[in-house]
Amino acid sequence: MITLAVDAMGGDAGLTVTVPGAIAFLKKQSNVHLMMVGDEVGLQQALKSANAPMDRISIIPASQVVEMDEAPQLALKNKKDSSMRVAINQVKEGNAQAAVSAGNTGALMATARFVLKTIPGIERPAIAKFMPSSNTNHFTLMLDLGANVDCSADQLTQFAVIGSELVQAMYPEKGQPRVGLLNVGTEDIKGTETVKQTFKLLKNSKLNFIGNIEGNGVFNDQVDVVVADGFVGNIMLKTIEGAVKFMSGEIKQEFSRNVFNKLAAITALPALKGMKAKLDPRKFNGAIFLGLRGVVIKSHGGTDEVGFMYALEEAYHEAKFASLAKIEQGVAEQLAALEKVREQEALDSGASHISTP
Amino acid sequence: MITLAVDAMGGDAGLTVTVPGAIAFLKKQSNVHLMMVGDEVGLQQALKSANAPMDRISIIPASQVVEMDEAPQLALKNKKDSSMRVAINQVKEGNAQAAVSAGNTGALMATARFVLKTIPGIERPAIAKFMPSSNTNHFTLMLDLGANVDCSADQLTQFAVIGSELVQAMYPEKGQPRVGLLNVGTEDIKGTETVKQTFKLLKNSKLNFIGNIEGNGVFNDQVDVVVADGFVGNIMLKTIEGAVKFMSGEIKQEFSRNVFNKLAAITALPALKGMKAKLDPRKFNGAIFLGLRGVVIKSHGGTDEVGFMYALEEAYHEAKFASLAKIEQGVAEQLAALEKVREQEALDSGASHISTP
Repeated sequence: MITLAVDAMGGDAGLTVTVPGAIAFLKKQSNVHLMMVGDEVGLQQALKSANAPMDRISIIPASQVVEMDEAPQLALKNKKDSSMRVAINQVKEGNAQAAVSAGNTGALMATARFVLKTIPGIERPAIAKFMPSSNTNHFTLMLDLGANVDCSADQLTQFAVIGSELVQAMYPEKGQPRVGLLNVGTEDIKGTETVKQTFKLLKNSKLNFIGNIEGNGVFNDQVDVVVADGFVGNIMLKTIEGAVKFMSGEIKQEFSRNVFNKLAAITALPALKGMKAKLDPRKFNGAIFLGLRGVVIKSHGGTDEVGFMYALEEAYHEAKFASLAKIEQGVAEQLAALEKVREQEALDSGASHISTP
Repeated sequence: MITLAVDAMGGDAGLTVTVPGAIAFLKKQSNVHLMMVGDEVGLQQALKSANAPMDRISIIPASQVVEMDEAPQLALKNKKDSSMRVAINQVKEGNAQAAVSAGNTGALMATARFVLKTIPGIERPAIAKFMPSSNTNHFTLMLDLGANVDCSADQLTQFAVIGSELVQAMYPEKGQPRVGLLNVGTEDIKGTETVKQTFKLLKNSKLNFIGNIEGNGVFNDQVDVVVADGFVGNIMLKTIEGAVKFMSGEIKQEFSRNVFNKLAAITALPALKGMKAKLDPRKFNGAIFLGLRGVVIKSHGGTDEVGFMYALEEAYHEAKFASLAKIEQGVAEQLAALEKVREQEALDSGASHISTP
């Protein structure tokens, strides 16, 4: 049995999205319990009027709500009884295996980091997401998607480690995940100074590092984990969203260009619908805050109940399959191996300075 | 009459692509002359057997070819009679209004910069490209697409200036081009340190700066010029290419899922073909080397004759409409205005240090 703590007040629409989303999710997954965190009275009413299965739901009262535009540090300081904070507390205290919120991203990250702390050896958590690829059975984990705009080579390497460990924990049948470094070319010498340094670190690591990949490499079944700093990763994510929307618009336009095409659209409807369903952004809702000592999933703030349901799905799968103990052990081993390489390099470079008499 | 100098030996396929591409272009545009630069004998044979209109073509002999993987600095030093270099020389000497090459990007950039020099005030040239948007009549100029992976705020600002001046020169009917800064959010406080500095500079400039845009902003008719460093820009470009290819694959897959969809694909053929034609990457072949004292267009190295023809089209349009004198004057005015703001700021901050007695 998996228990998820839901920030019921978060997101642009709060209860009107989280409650129906939660109910849809409970219909889909049987072996799960939800802790709905937020305004007690509001929750009781919303759940009752939606005819929610109360045997699988508990209400956890929280008196405050973090606003969508509130400064993260202020939320952390002043909103200790917010639905967001109380949901994360459930994970910290072991009452729930994951927390899900559609609230303010910055506040959620700051709160999650403050309450749960990072996995030893991971300086800063990253935001990660599974992206679809040309192989229906393959998803590429992309990180960081915006938590850290300026990253050091060490941090990027940590992202690679933590991403690889998550994929391995969730999909052990796939073997050691293939890790790619997002770059402007596949040659070793490409990229910014930080990226070049990261390349060296990853090459010396015990990860299954396949080298640099370019922007189009995310869509092939070429890598399992793509590492970038949060600036590049976020721009890439938004670019993909924009490109998909743009192409969908173009399809629509083509199919309404003239009477013939409009008629064709009717017979093509099943294919067009299949296409739409496959690329429905709501299915890819649910970003993972990676590197924390606990599972926290961020739903898009403006999503609807279907999107919120998918965020709960993501939390459920991660909570069920990605054992934190296993991930922590994997991270520790990977980082220890890297440290060894570093020490050896320091010794070697030290030795090279000793002049032979 | 516009004259273009064509590096006939450049690209993965050399003459077998450049010659038919050139002939296709001459059929499309009447008021143009081509200087085909390269191996004299090979060119004569290829042009003759393709029945080329020799009254509109001249052959300019060049004895060397820059290899696709040759180090730019070596090409610059050792290949002074390369087809690439001789083509660019034609622009320098005023014999041609633009040079087009499908050759080695790094060598082409190094050679173009060495031969033509940059526009006064522009430290380094950028690679730019017009991208399609949801509005059929609107194209977004994206730069830099990979010439400069590490950029200062000053350089990014220069890219904004030069991009804006190009769009204004080519599309004066549009009024002052709208300039956007690629970022991870629309708020002023977002982004890396360099991007934040650039935001301030652009805000103080006389450009029509509309602020930060996110990755999806490229596809809307929201800006005319998008500024990013070459690392982010290149990854974005490749991501778009990958996303379009991915979506096209998904469409194909949906329309062959079952017998019904396969039949639907037949009636949908005109719409699907229209879609394919609209997003044909060959139509967007032809990257602009921007910031040089002369027009240089880079064709994709692996393109076919249709793609090469579109690169020639791009060169033709830029040579015809983007007067260098006008662009240089615009750049000088914009940079002078920026300099003034800087001086005023220096004065203000100096004044604030003077203690009142």
